[in-house]
Amino acid sequence: MKVMIGVDLGGTNIRVAKVDENGKILQEIKSPSYAQESRERVVENMKDLIHRIDGYDTCEGIGIGVPGPVNQVERKMTLSTNLPGFEGYPLAEEIEKEFHIPVYLENDADVAGLAEAMVGAGKDYPIVFYTTLSTGIGGGLIVNKQVVSGRKGFGAEIANIIIDRNRKAINKLSAGAVENEASGTNITRKANELMGEKVFKHAGEVFNAAERGNEDIQKLVEEATMDLAMMYATITATVAPDIFVLGGGMMQSKDSFLPKVIEKYQGLVHEQLRDTPFVEAKLAEPGVVGAAMLVLSRQK
Amino acid sequence: MKVMIGVDLGGTNIRVAKVDENGKILQEIKSPSYAQESRERVVENMKDLIHRIDGYDTCEGIGIGVPGPVNQVERKMTLSTNLPGFEGYPLAEEIEKEFHIPVYLENDADVAGLAEAMVGAGKDYPIVFYTTLSTGIGGGLIVNKQVVSGRKGFGAEIANIIIDRNRKAINKLSAGAVENEASGTNITRKANELMGEKVFKHAGEVFNAAERGNEDIQKLVEEATMDLAMMYATITATVAPDIFVLGGGMMQSKDSFLPKVIEKYQGLVHEQLRDTPFVEAKLAEPGVVGAAMLVLSRQK
Repeated sequence: MKVMIGVDLGGTNIRVAKVDENGKILQEIKSPSYAQESRERVVENMKDLIHRIDGYDTCEGIGIGVPGPVNQVERKMTLSTNLPGFEGYPLAEEIEKEFHIPVYLENDADVAGLAEAMVGAGKDYPIVFYTTLSTGIGGGLIVNKQVVSGRKGFGAEIANIIIDRNRKAINKLSAGAVENEASGTNITRKANELMGEKVFKHAGEVFNAAERGNEDIQKLVEEATMDLAMMYATITATVAPDIFVLGGGMMQSKDSFLPKVIEKYQGLVHEQLRDTPFVEAKLAEPGVVGAAMLVLSRQK
Repeated sequence: MKVMIGVDLGGTNIRVAKVDENGKILQEIKSPSYAQESRERVVENMKDLIHRIDGYDTCEGIGIGVPGPVNQVERKMTLSTNLPGFEGYPLAEEIEKEFHIPVYLENDADVAGLAEAMVGAGKDYPIVFYTTLSTGIGGGLIVNKQVVSGRKGFGAEIANIIIDRNRKAINKLSAGAVENEASGTNITRKANELMGEKVFKHAGEVFNAAERGNEDIQKLVEEATMDLAMMYATITATVAPDIFVLGGGMMQSKDSFLPKVIEKYQGLVHEQLRDTPFVEAKLAEPGVVGAAMLVLSRQK
């Protein structure tokens, strides 16, 4: 059985794992990523960790998931907010030079989606659209077990889907961009603004307040779930995925919001697509598993 | 060089052509499709036409483009408005039985997109999004020379992208669906409603009136081009294609509306995607050429 190395490089932590074809983690090492120290420190640390994987030199290759879009032509990150110095840096090349096995780089939400498409909740479906609902909103489009990375790596950067053009612009995303209106952080922000003070710490608490009968908060939840339904309907009108796989922190409160999203979604899509499944992500560690799977996927 | 048969089956006409790998049409026959007579008549006529292609039995296979979504698992049309009786009918199987070479079925906008992606304006790009702006609005998503058909064949059925949820519902599409707001027919309808009488016969005349200085019509054109820009921005936020290839009757007036669409689009997408090219479709007969290319594409 083939064995690959997966690296999940985040702004805070880095995980390196040896993973088999079935997505089973055979060995895993975790460490701070040292992103705030220097790029050199991050890269040296990554090399050290990979060296500590048993039999690293006999693996098929190394896949790396990074927090930002990756231009697949240049094999470089095009944007890197949480990893200073990595924009345009030839990380894949640098790691290849050290280990002499093929290295593949891809956006973290894309590799999480790939993991779900290959060995997780989406494994029986040709077109998997993975979404992560959390602080932000991210996505990954996986067609026949291949990530559709998109122009300059911006494929499935769904944070910027405009779900209502009549909203106010609040940052560099477009006015009415779904992330600004319906991510966990922004649902919490809007609910606190409505209360006039910082009542809620996360979206789960907002959903609870709605369930306890706060009518203003209920309206806000109705609107946010409509915003998410619009996002999923938009994705459906564009690619018609066979399945939506949902990950991210907001899914801890899935019973409070997901049925509302699905009901509204069904009113916005063609009747034949109303049965599109919305399924919770299945893997505990999609980051390292997906990064490892990238090797298999790209070598096909 | 490989040679394939392409069939473009429409509600009015059918074209059958022998096409080489470069997309060159070697022989072509055109006939009414007899869609209003009976399904049997349509199928018999199609068989007759294919039999009339020189050396039809030595071709690699037969590709058929049809006016509606095609479920690729069942190899059948899932919706067929302009071809009565074809919903759920095993056309591919029927033609295979007659000719004993592989037969592939796909939606007409998808095969037009495939033609452009393989031998037309998009041939140098991994991710091609083809749009047709005409009576309706249709699309085709082609990734690495493969059509992304979508769940039950509904991939890139972009008519239903909601570009403004605050519009009125006017038919079975969602309220604010782009086709109802910005297709050629609907731009013409809205302009005539604004004038209180049937002044315009097609969108080109509406654009001309705006250029001659009619301020009400200018506002309408501004809105319609914003609606189209929203559609393209939505597609970009979902898949980030490397290129948009544009076909359809409205492109005859491209100088009157396309620069406005592109300018507005650039204000709605990430700064790194503002240079996404919008290019006019190149092929004179994308229908038969794309249908033929389907054979090559699917055999890979």
